[in-house]
Amino acid sequence: MTEPNGRLPRYDDLPAADLGGRSGWGLFGPDDSLGLMNQQTPERVLAATRLVQRGAVFPLDAALDGVDPPLTPKRGKPRHTLVHRPSPVTGLDDVYDNFNPQTSSQWDSLAHMAYSPGTFYNGATEEDVLSGRRNTIDFWARQGIVARAVVLDVARALPAAGREYRPGSGTAFTVEDLELARSVTGLSYSPGCILLLHTGFLGWYQQQPDQDRADWVRNLRAPGVEHTEEMARYLWDSGAVAIASDTFAVEVWPPDGRPEAFPFGFLHRVLIGQFGMALGELWQLGDLAADCADDGVFECLLTSAPINGRGGIGSPPNALAIK
Amino acid sequence: MTEPNGRLPRYDDLPAADLGGRSGWGLFGPDDSLGLMNQQTPERVLAATRLVQRGAVFPLDAALDGVDPPLTPKRGKPRHTLVHRPSPVTGLDDVYDNFNPQTSSQWDSLAHMAYSPGTFYNGATEEDVLSGRRNTIDFWARQGIVARAVVLDVARALPAAGREYRPGSGTAFTVEDLELARSVTGLSYSPGCILLLHTGFLGWYQQQPDQDRADWVRNLRAPGVEHTEEMARYLWDSGAVAIASDTFAVEVWPPDGRPEAFPFGFLHRVLIGQFGMALGELWQLGDLAADCADDGVFECLLTSAPINGRGGIGSPPNALAIK
Amino acid sequence: MTEPNGRLPRYDDLPAADLGGRSGWGLFGPDDSLGLMNQQTPERVLAATRLVQRGAVFPLDAALDGVDPPLTPKRGKPRHTLVHRPSPVTGLDDVYDNFNPQTSSQWDSLAHMAYSPGTFYNGATEEDVLSGRRNTIDFWARQGIVARAVVLDVARALPAAGREYRPGSGTAFTVEDLELARSVTGLSYSPGCILLLHTGFLGWYQQQPDQDRADWVRNLRAPGVEHTEEMARYLWDSGAVAIASDTFAVEVWPPDGRPEAFPFGFLHRVLIGQFGMALGELWQLGDLAADCADDGVFECLLTSAPINGRGGIGSPPNALAIK
Amino acid sequence: MTEPNGRLPRYDDLPAADLGGRSGWGLFGPDDSLGLMNQQTPERVLAATRLVQRGAVFPLDAALDGVDPPLTPKRGKPRHTLVHRPSPVTGLDDVYDNFNPQTSSQWDSLAHMAYSPGTFYNGATEEDVLSGRRNTIDFWARQGIVARAVVLDVARALPAAGREYRPGSGTAFTVEDLELARSVTGLSYSPGCILLLHTGFLGWYQQQPDQDRADWVRNLRAPGVEHTEEMARYLWDSGAVAIASDTFAVEVWPPDGRPEAFPFGFLHRVLIGQFGMALGELWQLGDLAADCADDGVFECLLTSAPINGRGGIGSPPNALAIK
Repeated sequence: MTEPNGRLPRYDDLPAADLGGRSGWGLFGPDDSLGLMNQQTPERVLAATRLVQRGAVFPLDAALDGVDPPLTPKRGKPRHTLVHRPSPVTGLDDVYDNFNPQTSSQWDSLAHMAYSPGTFYNGATEEDVLSGRRNTIDFWARQGIVARAVVLDVARALPAAGREYRPGSGTAFTVEDLELARSVTGLSYSPGCILLLHTGFLGWYQQQPDQDRADWVRNLRAPGVEHTEEMARYLWDSGAVAIASDTFAVEVWPPDGRPEAFPFGFLHRVLIGQFGMALGELWQLGDLAADCADDGVFECLLTSAPINGRGGIGSPPNALAIK
Repeated sequence: MTEPNGRLPRYDDLPAADLGGRSGWGLFGPDDSLGLMNQQTPERVLAATRLVQRGAVFPLDAALDGVDPPLTPKRGKPRHTLVHRPSPVTGLDDVYDNFNPQTSSQWDSLAHMAYSPGTFYNGATEEDVLSGRRNTIDFWARQGIVARAVVLDVARALPAAGREYRPGSGTAFTVEDLELARSVTGLSYSPGCILLLHTGFLGWYQQQPDQDRADWVRNLRAPGVEHTEEMARYLWDSGAVAIASDTFAVEVWPPDGRPEAFPFGFLHRVLIGQFGMALGELWQLGDLAADCADDGVFECLLTSAPINGRGGIGSPPNALAIK
Repeated sequence: MTEPNGRLPRYDDLPAADLGGRSGWGLFGPDDSLGLMNQQTPERVLAATRLVQRGAVFPLDAALDGVDPPLTPKRGKPRHTLVHRPSPVTGLDDVYDNFNPQTSSQWDSLAHMAYSPGTFYNGATEEDVLSGRRNTIDFWARQGIVARAVVLDVARALPAAGREYRPGSGTAFTVEDLELARSVTGLSYSPGCILLLHTGFLGWYQQQPDQDRADWVRNLRAPGVEHTEEMARYLWDSGAVAIASDTFAVEVWPPDGRPEAFPFGFLHRVLIGQFGMALGELWQLGDLAADCADDGVFECLLTSAPINGRGGIGSPPNALAIK
Repeated sequence: MTEPNGRLPRYDDLPAADLGGRSGWGLFGPDDSLGLMNQQTPERVLAATRLVQRGAVFPLDAALDGVDPPLTPKRGKPRHTLVHRPSPVTGLDDVYDNFNPQTSSQWDSLAHMAYSPGTFYNGATEEDVLSGRRNTIDFWARQGIVARAVVLDVARALPAAGREYRPGSGTAFTVEDLELARSVTGLSYSPGCILLLHTGFLGWYQQQPDQDRADWVRNLRAPGVEHTEEMARYLWDSGAVAIASDTFAVEVWPPDGRPEAFPFGFLHRVLIGQFGMALGELWQLGDLAADCADDGVFECLLTSAPINGRGGIGSPPNALAIK
């Protein structure tokens, strides 16, 4: 179903998914576990490296304990222990316990969220996923992620357009909002690209006083893309293989509980479960976005080496943006 | 003390270190925690990206449980647990316990090994290191590692030159051996480059029968560079900021216990503790080396995003080689 | 200040504590870390063993994962991993990670809760406690707990007296309620005894459907003794060294937030922080209580060996009731 | 097969086990998971409580980190983390990671060691054990252990009889040695009793200098009962349900590798895998043994509440001796 020029069908040409939305299942074969990451081709990798103009490097991972308290209480913080090894000279090891790769900056693998109960991207069953046979993070780790990235800085674009915007307010971004941010860049999306959505949320959260953060987590809300079919269509048709953001869930939080909401009021289930799109959450995008605002260049080379854990679900992005 | 053209002094022009060998302390200021990674400049980053010719990506991290049993019994294997989250649809998290970043592919940070008891690279004290104030892995994580890499394939170069070589035999490579491997590449080293030393060890280990591996660990030996001042001089004068290998300790194992051995018979203490050089161990270099042998191109872009753990000691390299 | 006959002063004869309530500090010397457990004497131990009449043994620890989901989300469940050891014949080990001793049945040590910010039982500072110098669980572990226990079965006594009572409703028990339960036993308290308060809460919780338990935890309420000075006086004057219950916090949950509430509206701070009384929570008392109702004998020998973890805070009770 | 008076058959009347030794399988029914702990009857529990004469309590658990370094490197030490909970007043929790219940004082459950590959006590399969259906530690936890204990102090009896004995020397105790220690007590064994074998090993180990302990572990040897059929017969015929010791493996270490050695040269496989006898290792018996030597009373009440972990393998004994 991939078109001759290597482009995927447009959203409206995809088959309907059974519970709503459209389905990308089968586009890369019945056994595929990579999803849209299949769109990473040598030509696109090579072209992405040519975007580098200055040699500036921006690590995009927040510290492992950089989202504190964690936004999902059950995830908890990693416990880090130093281990002294006296021989033959002072040496140190370290050990992490309770390391949940989704506590700080993270990729959601295609094993993180099902589309419908028990059914994951490309028809993988819960048993497929639990056994590590399909969709787990190591599939991406064994490929390596190298792509052109386009920075969408809604945190700057909205105020610049006269719109009131506060990162801590739970704003839902519309397709028009993303287009506004894209128009600032002067760039088009391209097949295989990665969208980096800067909402200002993580930086804002990190700067709140301790007690405010603790209180805030109890009534979690965070900005992100709206839960609509227009948004699903826009993201698919962008050609992007991934969208990574500095907010909690890429999409606005909390989910939309109204029965009439676009499938489930929770876009994860369509983006991950049907599109096979990689979602990056709580990435530390502030320095990169500031640099883009400064030099007016909103694209870069992005490299990411997810943790090579067999059967793993999440991972720190281990991502570098290089301009 | 950095020379006008940005090159560091040569080994023989460095001051003597108090217990033997030469010292790189102070070259980047009294508070430096990056070591030779300071040699990563925008110009070198930019130039490294231009080495990419095909868009081929080689992830260099072995699986987290890919060195089994671990070569250092005290390190143990990570324990990986899947966590079911039923709401609002089937979701999964995962958690790692007992995750020692030095069990599989790893970077040793400048906090891993002291030069003399209690004294680390650049004069950092044990308290500096334990408190995460100096030398820990997060200093590299906040910079991001992007460099030209040169592949030294001793596992192929030695047999090709008629030398008997078995990866499981604990061979010590001399300066001449490395020069032999370099001559095959037709390349020169350059300031800021990273050496990737393919010994064949990890691939060999992974292919041994279960019981053989268990037995072998009890009497650990592994190939690597020899413990000599000639080797220290060679590595420093190469201009490399790091040397990463698919063997246990970059240098041959076990250490040389003879009193007359070059300082300590254990090169780590000089390379890490005096040079501030990054050592990469147990990297999965087999596919990359095979590709280099195939196309005759032994250099590439290397990106690595160490885990951003404050006060951390080791890290998976999270490394990609891009040709 | 201990009286000639070995009895402690009565509550109203204790000095006032600075933020409200009365203080037991200093009764056992300025360095004491045992609290009321000092009242365990050889004579009382010997007498307690003579209460055994039938040789019936009731283990009082719920399963480590027997309170699921945990009532305090941050505590999480232990992760249990089996480790195969093939040599010389099939052998197994096991490992617990994320083992918080306060997730299931537990003792609160005198290090668990301060009286005022930074000040623990008997004037111990936060540094004293964090360093394991004072008040931690190992003080009790090194003594061992052996005592006469008296079973107060409010879950049966209230309905039997015509009072409506539901274990899941967050009922606050008054002094009169406890006296009602005591009168059923026909027993008096005695210096050094342990009160076992059966509220029916844990058994009720364990029998709810999965989804109900998950919902219920989000709005936690649990029965327990009321937050009043009358209750503090009653418990002290009982002569008990400990009170253990099958409910969440011994006292009713949630705490009383009204400014006029008895010091802090949270009795823990007085019972633990001033009295040095051991609080046992979420003990599995159902079988024991049923047996007492059956044979009409509401006292027994109680043994408990807290986990011998240096500097530890909580512990499973590892308790046996023997009748 | 239990005899009319509640005594079990004698060793020589048991059926032969297929690989050597005698078999206790089936004595308590085909589904039994308790093993000899079935011999704990109310009458025996009651009688054991009457042994208490003074009210002296001896906790028998070494500290969790009290065997340091651990004698089995793969077991590692627990990592203990304190967790601050600021609200509503200073509160503390704690968490253990890497907690292997066999690192310090421990019970081996009947799931710890097979008799023949894949076959555990009473014919339980590996799947039975791994799934927690049979033989695991929680079976004993749900019963609770209360028994008469007899102290065999070989560490004192051998020297008193003019025999040279050093706790660190790997001495094998013969049946005659145990009989010598028993004769000092003036006591007989009784059905359902527990033997406490004081070898002096743990106390000796704890008093060695740090470096000596580290060296010693690399070449582990420890005293214990000999690997002979005479010993197996003696232990079974004693009527004991358990034997607990302050040494590494109850039996002498290392195992006897000679082909002619009594089945396997490793008594665990017969004691655990055929007899269903509980083995206690590395118990801290020094204070109790000293007290017995002092007052001449070598029996006591023993209570033990193994950790109630479903499907668990080992446990701290959580044991108290009460005299």
